[in-house]
Amino acid sequence: MTSSLRMSSPPRLEAVSGFRAEVRREDADAVEHLVRATGVFSEAEIGIARELVEEYLAEGETESGYTFLFADGAEGLEGYTCFGPIPGTVARYELYWIAVHPDRHRRGLARRLQAASEDVARARFVQRMIAETSTKPNYAPARRFYEAQGYKLLAEIPDWHEDGDGKAVYGKRL
Amino acid sequence: MTSSLRMSSPPRLEAVSGFRAEVRREDADAVEHLVRATGVFSEAEIGIARELVEEYLAEGETESGYTFLFADGAEGLEGYTCFGPIPGTVARYELYWIAVHPDRHRRGLARRLQAASEDVARARFVQRMIAETSTKPNYAPARRFYEAQGYKLLAEIPDWHEDGDGKAVYGKRL
Repeated sequence: MTSSLRMSSPPRLEAVSGFRAEVRREDADAVEHLVRATGVFSEAEIGIARELVEEYLAEGETESGYTFLFADGAEGLEGYTCFGPIPGTVARYELYWIAVHPDRHRRGLARRLQAASEDVARARFVQRMIAETSTKPNYAPARRFYEAQGYKLLAEIPDWHEDGDGKAVYGKRL
Repeated sequence: MTSSLRMSSPPRLEAVSGFRAEVRREDADAVEHLVRATGVFSEAEIGIARELVEEYLAEGETESGYTFLFADGAEGLEGYTCFGPIPGTVARYELYWIAVHPDRHRRGLARRLQAASEDVARARFVQRMIAETSTKPNYAPARRFYEAQGYKLLAEIPDWHEDGDGKAVYGKRL
């Protein structure tokens, strides 16, 4: 017996449903630009979105705990998701980010990115995907989007982000 | 005018209410040992507790986002807390860890560590401290402890950590 059949590391994700899984140096700028262009997120949130890309680039997928799917278009990044295991849980992933450029809305891109992210998680035996968002009125489209994709509201915590800005926690069995 | 009155960085926390705030290399082992000795936490959780100390040692307080308070005793570490800002929130801290060696229980050490952590947060204008724990029966002492310290149950999410192991979210206005 040789050990040639043993894999030294899991196969690297390159592309899923036509989305790019490889993370490139320029994605930090592209993600910051895209997330800002949505007009929904605060500067602190935009900073966090960028930081996750930078953590991935510095530490890799396993150490950072993030997986990305990117939708590339003729004029640059059109949308992306970032998801990964929730520390301290078993077979639970969180969809940390999903964003689509405002010019690319209403073409089903967010829905396809979401579905592809769930496919990746399902293939890793993840049982439940969590998505958290704000209870504020301007996040109503995000809440409707999750509900339309089969997510159930698990909890609402008033004043979570700051006074007057609660957290809505959604979950979906995969 | 000289610039001698301008501080180049915030004053470093050295000790609070008799607890040590300085983090030392050997604290990674000491925290792992202490958290395991409690008999409450899973191996995954023990790994996370250690990791937070290592992140602090590698990145410092601001970058890691963690502040520690250690209770040193004649025979080593008797208890500690780890807390810091919740990303994406304003003036919200989470008490990530509080653990006391089983031999040191019932002497009010956990209560004093908790109070000192809240004092540090209050001095930083934090408005709300969050503490999350499990809904499982063996975490009942932790839930009673938070309630006795003035924490209110904000949400319970069934099956959060895994099926049958929910999350209880507590919060306290500072």
